[in-house]
Amino acid sequence: MQRIYTNELYAHVGGRVRLAGWLQQRRELSRLSFVVLRDARGLAQIVVDDTATIAELLPETVIEVEGDAVAAPQAPGGAEVHAPSFKVLAAPAAAPPIELRRPELKEQLPTQLDYASVALRHPRRRAAFQIAAASLTGYRAALDAHGFTEIQTPKIVASATESGANVFELDYFGKSAFLAQSPQFYKQIMVGVFERVYEVGPVFRAEPHDTPRHLAEYVSLDAELGFIEHYRDVMRFAREAVAGMVDGVASRAAAAVELLGVELPEVPTEIPTLDFPAAQELIEAATGERIVGEPDLAPAHERWLGDWARREHGSDFLFVSAFPMVKRPFYTHPDPARPELSNSFDLIFRGLELITGGQRLHRYEDYVAALEARGQSIDPYDGYLQAFRYGMPPHGGFAIGLERWVARLVGASNIRETTLFPRDLTRLTP
Amino acid sequence: MQRIYTNELYAHVGGRVRLAGWLQQRRELSRLSFVVLRDARGLAQIVVDDTATIAELLPETVIEVEGDAVAAPQAPGGAEVHAPSFKVLAAPAAAPPIELRRPELKEQLPTQLDYASVALRHPRRRAAFQIAAASLTGYRAALDAHGFTEIQTPKIVASATESGANVFELDYFGKSAFLAQSPQFYKQIMVGVFERVYEVGPVFRAEPHDTPRHLAEYVSLDAELGFIEHYRDVMRFAREAVAGMVDGVASRAAAAVELLGVELPEVPTEIPTLDFPAAQELIEAATGERIVGEPDLAPAHERWLGDWARREHGSDFLFVSAFPMVKRPFYTHPDPARPELSNSFDLIFRGLELITGGQRLHRYEDYVAALEARGQSIDPYDGYLQAFRYGMPPHGGFAIGLERWVARLVGASNIRETTLFPRDLTRLTP
Repeated sequence: MQRIYTNELYAHVGGRVRLAGWLQQRRELSRLSFVVLRDARGLAQIVVDDTATIAELLPETVIEVEGDAVAAPQAPGGAEVHAPSFKVLAAPAAAPPIELRRPELKEQLPTQLDYASVALRHPRRRAAFQIAAASLTGYRAALDAHGFTEIQTPKIVASATESGANVFELDYFGKSAFLAQSPQFYKQIMVGVFERVYEVGPVFRAEPHDTPRHLAEYVSLDAELGFIEHYRDVMRFAREAVAGMVDGVASRAAAAVELLGVELPEVPTEIPTLDFPAAQELIEAATGERIVGEPDLAPAHERWLGDWARREHGSDFLFVSAFPMVKRPFYTHPDPARPELSNSFDLIFRGLELITGGQRLHRYEDYVAALEARGQSIDPYDGYLQAFRYGMPPHGGFAIGLERWVARLVGASNIRETTLFPRDLTRLTP
Repeated sequence: MQRIYTNELYAHVGGRVRLAGWLQQRRELSRLSFVVLRDARGLAQIVVDDTATIAELLPETVIEVEGDAVAAPQAPGGAEVHAPSFKVLAAPAAAPPIELRRPELKEQLPTQLDYASVALRHPRRRAAFQIAAASLTGYRAALDAHGFTEIQTPKIVASATESGANVFELDYFGKSAFLAQSPQFYKQIMVGVFERVYEVGPVFRAEPHDTPRHLAEYVSLDAELGFIEHYRDVMRFAREAVAGMVDGVASRAAAAVELLGVELPEVPTEIPTLDFPAAQELIEAATGERIVGEPDLAPAHERWLGDWARREHGSDFLFVSAFPMVKRPFYTHPDPARPELSNSFDLIFRGLELITGGQRLHRYEDYVAALEARGQSIDPYDGYLQAFRYGMPPHGGFAIGLERWVARLVGASNIRETTLFPRDLTRLTP
């Protein structure tokens, strides 16, 4: 008999079925018992008359069950299994250290992370990663539709992208090398090849901060495109990418969205936009906090702006554009009319910076001047600057942190909840 | 006027068009000149009467051209541009070190790799990466259709997966850590969560060999699935994955396939299969070389088997199954009937090992015994063994090297030709 999944049980009411999965819970009443079986798609309740057959089974025993599918309005999915026969596929060596039977895990996050191989089996924990996978599919579909080509660029690199401060160093056949902090240089080079590119891959930051929003390794969704006329073109594709991610989640992770009670955002066709100085003035006028002239926004300011966008525009999203050059990396293109400001932007989603992007320099001599102004040698950047030395169009791009996106979407307070096996200051296993 | 791409020129014959791209070549005749413009999709020929307007432009100048689209059977794509006006978007700082105007690059591979940002712009070089991107789309589509969930697992890990020999070590906040040689442990753990998973991501091997088929970093297409009844189930999905990749290339990279003259393989519904001992006997009988009893196949044997599959079965693919346990990693499941052989396989594509896969151990006590038999402590594997300690179904999986697949498909003799920015014993830049 062909195995069915738990979410197909109701469609088989009246027939004989075979399920397979993990014994998540056993409830023994006086005259009968219930077993809750979990598979990749959900839960199914099994009514057991002969309790002895299952009395010895530990939670997380891998089982096959054959039985009758019977309508049962009180059971998950509206059906349950009667008259079951069990077959043990694998017996655990011990009872698990995480109680998966609870609707929400009661173990603290560090315990969940220590026992990730078990904790991730909980339907609420794994739902976040179904949303992550669906987001990626949507991201790729949105950019594929606009002629972007997917690329894979090296993660072992000769020089730090952003700054030397938070970079992991490794021994590369006796030479010193680094783990890529971003695919920035390579995605720009690839604009010279494919004009429009994206990459989904790991990036590495030796973050010395132990915070709920920093990780030493995360998944970056990067895009870059050439022949732009204004950096608003980049913002337009950043909007397309996010809209694609929301569409992907809606169409491919509906069960996870429902389980977690996620309210999916609407992505406005025109996302409201404030330039950085105007955003500061707005915050200062409303809160009295003296921030005009500061070079960056603090998290509290992002939250204020998120509330403002919600209140004034009914939008979960807000672009802040024209950040001061002083806080942006050397490859950032200045605004020719206001050279202290940059052709760059952040996208704030529900009060949190989700995307950073902007226009890059594209002339070789501008790179030489920008590095010189920062007192940096051009030598370590030789392989990168090649691209500009031999002709590159105006271009720009953006990056989205996958785990941060999912955390904000599902309302997780710690980014480690939306990271399968987080890496941070203290955590290297599992 | 909206920009069009070069491959759309013919459809606009009779109208005025705007193109943008790189000046790939300038040919000056006595009375007129030709410019070949390259964009992300191809080439277009532009006829210039007033040669002075372009006389100063270096190759790889980024230009916009407006002109009349005119039918011209001898031009690429059957159309060319007349009466052009040019606008320079970006002037290179120097003439490029690679002659992109040639139908095939004449520079040696090391020079092409030194100047990758330019060499990759050549239509034949970039075509391989269009095929790579299309392969990935097809791979994901094939596995998505069978309920696989995409995952991202950490690349900084606490212990080596395969062996300690070829692993990169790094300083992780003062502790020693490694770069993942494969997502093997994590994809197995995730079978306990999603039952069927796949990952596309970088893997790292400190290969001390400078050969045309080894890299220090490559892209691995990994998959793993639970509730298998036999390792033939794994082989079936490996076949599905490859068939999806071929479909992806056929449907999404047709122009690249044509440009490179690639003959796409047919993937038989039933790929011919030989078990390892039978394969050795066949080779020994045919060649006289004494190999029965050797623990592995040499590259020459793979080539012989590839020819045999082609000759006897008309197939570009051949499964070799039941490899000796002695050469397989500790998590490999033995064949219960012949414990010196394993439930594992290779897929040979045109004489080259493309996929390695098989069934894994799934009982905790089997892992403990397997590590003990190899004299290894279980302690470094604690986070991994957790999954088996707390219930895991029979499962297996496989891995495909993306660059190797594309190299074999396009007939590249060196895997560096199908890697954007290769990393090897001597090469860390660009």
